[in-house]
Amino acid sequence: MTLKPMLAALAGQTQTPPPFWLMRQAGRYLPEYRQVRAQAGGFLDLCLNPELACEVTLQPLRRYGMDAAILFSDILIIPWALGQGLRFAEGEGPVLDAIRDASGLAGLKPEGMHDRAAPIYETVSRIRAALDDRTTLIGFAGSPWTVACYMVEGGGSKEYAKVKRFAYTDPAGFDQLIDILVTATVDYLSAQVKAGAEVLQLFDSWAGALSAADFQRYSVEPTRRIVAALKALHPAVPIIGFPRMAGLNLVSYVEQTGVDAVSLDPSVPPEWAAAHLQGKVAVQGNLDPVVLLAGGEALEQAALSLLDQLGQGPFIFNLGHGIIKETPPEHVTRLAGLIRDWQPATKA
Amino acid sequence: MTLKPMLAALAGQTQTPPPFWLMRQAGRYLPEYRQVRAQAGGFLDLCLNPELACEVTLQPLRRYGMDAAILFSDILIIPWALGQGLRFAEGEGPVLDAIRDASGLAGLKPEGMHDRAAPIYETVSRIRAALDDRTTLIGFAGSPWTVACYMVEGGGSKEYAKVKRFAYTDPAGFDQLIDILVTATVDYLSAQVKAGAEVLQLFDSWAGALSAADFQRYSVEPTRRIVAALKALHPAVPIIGFPRMAGLNLVSYVEQTGVDAVSLDPSVPPEWAAAHLQGKVAVQGNLDPVVLLAGGEALEQAALSLLDQLGQGPFIFNLGHGIIKETPPEHVTRLAGLIRDWQPATKA
Repeated sequence: MTLKPMLAALAGQTQTPPPFWLMRQAGRYLPEYRQVRAQAGGFLDLCLNPELACEVTLQPLRRYGMDAAILFSDILIIPWALGQGLRFAEGEGPVLDAIRDASGLAGLKPEGMHDRAAPIYETVSRIRAALDDRTTLIGFAGSPWTVACYMVEGGGSKEYAKVKRFAYTDPAGFDQLIDILVTATVDYLSAQVKAGAEVLQLFDSWAGALSAADFQRYSVEPTRRIVAALKALHPAVPIIGFPRMAGLNLVSYVEQTGVDAVSLDPSVPPEWAAAHLQGKVAVQGNLDPVVLLAGGEALEQAALSLLDQLGQGPFIFNLGHGIIKETPPEHVTRLAGLIRDWQPATKA
Repeated sequence: MTLKPMLAALAGQTQTPPPFWLMRQAGRYLPEYRQVRAQAGGFLDLCLNPELACEVTLQPLRRYGMDAAILFSDILIIPWALGQGLRFAEGEGPVLDAIRDASGLAGLKPEGMHDRAAPIYETVSRIRAALDDRTTLIGFAGSPWTVACYMVEGGGSKEYAKVKRFAYTDPAGFDQLIDILVTATVDYLSAQVKAGAEVLQLFDSWAGALSAADFQRYSVEPTRRIVAALKALHPAVPIIGFPRMAGLNLVSYVEQTGVDAVSLDPSVPPEWAAAHLQGKVAVQGNLDPVVLLAGGEALEQAALSLLDQLGQGPFIFNLGHGIIKETPPEHVTRLAGLIRDWQPATKA
């Protein structure tokens, strides 16, 4: 049996051309997405509507034939399913009823998580049933550190002062929150696999806010525990880790967490990743989303350079961060063509 | 003649204890700063008032006896002095009359820069005259990439989409802006040296937003040109570079720019910096500002660990980013004590 291109790359096989998908590929840059979004009500309503969430997940595949669909959802579904108040204010991002210290943890209800998250699992099943036999379905969750940032800050943050102050002044209480999130993440992702997810991605979007010592404690260690638990339950399901802006801490993440692949932000030099990471795991990334927004010669040069640098090992072409909503859809068409037509240069 | 502790560290000498200062040490966490700030009018008025800017620069030294004073000013003085409209909206950060493309460059007036920046040079002279003979005066500027981000975005940014779109769609036009900023930065910093600055720091706060290739083009290369020009004019003045969140690109920055020292953000593992950077340049950093905000045991552990890891080579103790305005002033007292009392462990 031949593996789907995405699964083959995750199994360490070099694919020519490499499989590709784009972070936030189902989103506001597509007019058909904006139409469904307007029908759905709020953003959270869309995430919790299996019919519409399945529809927007599939939209970019119809246009561009990516090798993977990623569940349309949000990393804050876990805190919401644990009972934390959450709303998405238009143009403002998420607003949560912040948990400032360990006393707030009692309000979380892990026992109710699957009931509340049921529409997400239903969406996963629907998407899987709709996919052809060469397209892979990716389920995902936020990593505990990143989710904890939102839960404690109550939304986005520049300095992460509240969440870090919690961690520094009450390390045992903060570890409790991390433990709750490790367990919830394993349960939530395992349910996604049972519903049909074939690959899982862990988004640690705020990994770059951590000092090296805290990265070890709050990014590497929880990720290692989640990966170990999921591998025990679902040994065949590959896991991609995305510790954004981890920089010099990337190697310890790759060596210690057990992930099958690492997703790279745009700051990571591709030739460094080829030399130091690709022998250990598959790599995914890392085109600057603004290059895709800009298009033209810059897009062509950057995409081909990335393909030349990473395409001769296990590689999944992606952006280094989510697609920007002003991106012209035809730039994605151009990118898909560049990837499909690419051939590795014959080495002299 | 014995060098001042800060200058000795920058000359590659190991100092025990290491010299220290804190980014944004003159600032809102100090009640005496808030008092002067209220007198001054707006933030820009304070920057341009030599008497008051000198006063706030000296305030933290009176309390804590840092080894260096840093000119109280802002990295946006250069665009303002080039004629770009700038205001600081309370609680919102800087707002500039954005330059969206090369056509906007004609409005910049480099020939008027020194006249407009004259109050800054006057502040430098006043501070230098007020310092004792063991305290070093640091002048500074933003790096061209970071300043260009503000000039094109018109303020802070999350995605840097406007500035990068300019760079990708009109690379020659964007190079013109970088060239203007390289020249202005050399002129501005040279004037600070003539007025009394003994060390210069270049803040590349948004270096982490660049892909590896763009980091080379827009951070390393302009910094290299600025350092070369300043070294030709003022060979004895050490230069500290701060490419924030440069991560895996730090080594090429250190090896190619010619800086005498590199300032590290909190994500850089100190033991990695000791092994890979400290043999080439002095290092400065990189305590997480939230650790200083939190205080207590977390502060003691993190500060001592940093001293143990970097204190046995050329090192300047600092934060990895600016001090947070809610930081209790007594935590800085505690930190100063920890640094002064530190002794390297005798190696077994």
